[in-house]
Amino acid sequence: MNRDFHDLLEAKWDEGKFLCVGLDPDIEKMPAAARKEHIADTILTFNKAIIDATHDIVCTFKPNPAFYEQYGEEGWHALKETVSHINTIAPGIPVILDAKRGDIGNTNIGYAKMAFDYIGADATTVQPYQGGDALAPFLERKDKGIIVLVKTSNPGSEEFQGLQTGGEPLYKTVARTIVEKWNVNKNCAVVVGATYPEELKEMRAIVGDMPILMPGIGAQGGDLEASVKVGKDSRGKGMIINASRAVIFASNSGNFAEAARAKAQKYDGAIRKALVE
Amino acid sequence: MNRDFHDLLEAKWDEGKFLCVGLDPDIEKMPAAARKEHIADTILTFNKAIIDATHDIVCTFKPNPAFYEQYGEEGWHALKETVSHINTIAPGIPVILDAKRGDIGNTNIGYAKMAFDYIGADATTVQPYQGGDALAPFLERKDKGIIVLVKTSNPGSEEFQGLQTGGEPLYKTVARTIVEKWNVNKNCAVVVGATYPEELKEMRAIVGDMPILMPGIGAQGGDLEASVKVGKDSRGKGMIINASRAVIFASNSGNFAEAARAKAQKYDGAIRKALVE
Repeated sequence: MNRDFHDLLEAKWDEGKFLCVGLDPDIEKMPAAARKEHIADTILTFNKAIIDATHDIVCTFKPNPAFYEQYGEEGWHALKETVSHINTIAPGIPVILDAKRGDIGNTNIGYAKMAFDYIGADATTVQPYQGGDALAPFLERKDKGIIVLVKTSNPGSEEFQGLQTGGEPLYKTVARTIVEKWNVNKNCAVVVGATYPEELKEMRAIVGDMPILMPGIGAQGGDLEASVKVGKDSRGKGMIINASRAVIFASNSGNFAEAARAKAQKYDGAIRKALVE
Repeated sequence: MNRDFHDLLEAKWDEGKFLCVGLDPDIEKMPAAARKEHIADTILTFNKAIIDATHDIVCTFKPNPAFYEQYGEEGWHALKETVSHINTIAPGIPVILDAKRGDIGNTNIGYAKMAFDYIGADATTVQPYQGGDALAPFLERKDKGIIVLVKTSNPGSEEFQGLQTGGEPLYKTVARTIVEKWNVNKNCAVVVGATYPEELKEMRAIVGDMPILMPGIGAQGGDLEASVKVGKDSRGKGMIINASRAVIFASNSGNFAEAARAKAQKYDGAIRKALVE
């Protein structure tokens, strides 16, 4: 049977797991213990330690290519090997490539090949600005997750996303368009920052049981408990709650992997608690 | 003196050059003569032939990473070497990396490093959806060109870009925001598809003498003459007119480089003619 992002995700949700760990390596924040002669080895050693220490807690891992491609070929090698390592030690965990790519359709063919065929990700994030026709090469991939930016976690996301258009902010129109037009293959999901609980609540009402990727807890200061309470779907599921820096750089000493595990367990516990309260 | 994107571009405009050739290699469309054992060699051999045959005609070259990163490390190697080749044989030609990246600020630091420091591009295209605060790592690079998607060339670009917001379509608000708020370092430019001449005319009125990158002539069917007439700035300059497939795949026989040169000359001639009419 082919891997299917949504099936893999549902299986993790059935285990009560909603935490996503963002694999966003930053050489300067890494402990000396993880540093090797070559950048690719440094990144891979670090990532493997984090993956090995947290894979039984998470529903997904989410590498962001920005933290790899700044190192060129070496970074891309480390990114591909990171995904391979996840697939080897925890084949039931879907991988989200947080690439936020977007171009015209002819060009997005290349980006879809990169994310799904070269890197081997199960899902990827995409930009909505160019419209649904441009995203066709992603939306056609039925077994993959196409996670569209709707309301992002950054402080200035209101600048355009909050503009009133037809009586509601733009991000709501984007969400409605995804639900009503783009989700033909039932493979769409949305990004809504956990830094905006009020908007998250409204968004859940619009998208129904569609998965919501929620970045912004941890280093960005989002309220985890509030986000879970308003972000869960009608079944008490539907969430991919991401923390990156707060987990992977929980400590910069030799025990960084154990510290990452402890932080992931803390978030996992807080999510489970918020779900039953 | 440091390389400055806008200075390099002005120098090419002073030579009467406005054509941008998009270096978007597609292995399947390449002539047998360019194919080598390794993908990186194939791409690089093809690109070098195109660059060598057209560099005296163009104002910029514009590689799009989607056509490289689908081949992983090999593709990234070819992309970096392509830019190095341009810098070697024609150091006066600025290179635009058409990466259309966009993320939160902390992550965009990585993308800016990739485009400007690793690849060595003089400019890059970026996504507006997350707002100006997110783009700070790009906007801070004073000597680089930060080219923001405004009205894209694809048929479905109206889906969100055309939404009415505050009495005008969204893309006009995006353009005004770039002009009024983001262009502090005078390093911004905008993307407006040559497939929309009416919108291009309105856009020139909004952005003044800011450079406009115009994709969409050639394979996408944009009207070159109409685009030049309404797209030029008050000095008869300000345009980066892109053709990709129509030039680089002008022929798939052994004379592909000569055919690309002939097609580039045809466009260059048409631009010059439209400018004096």
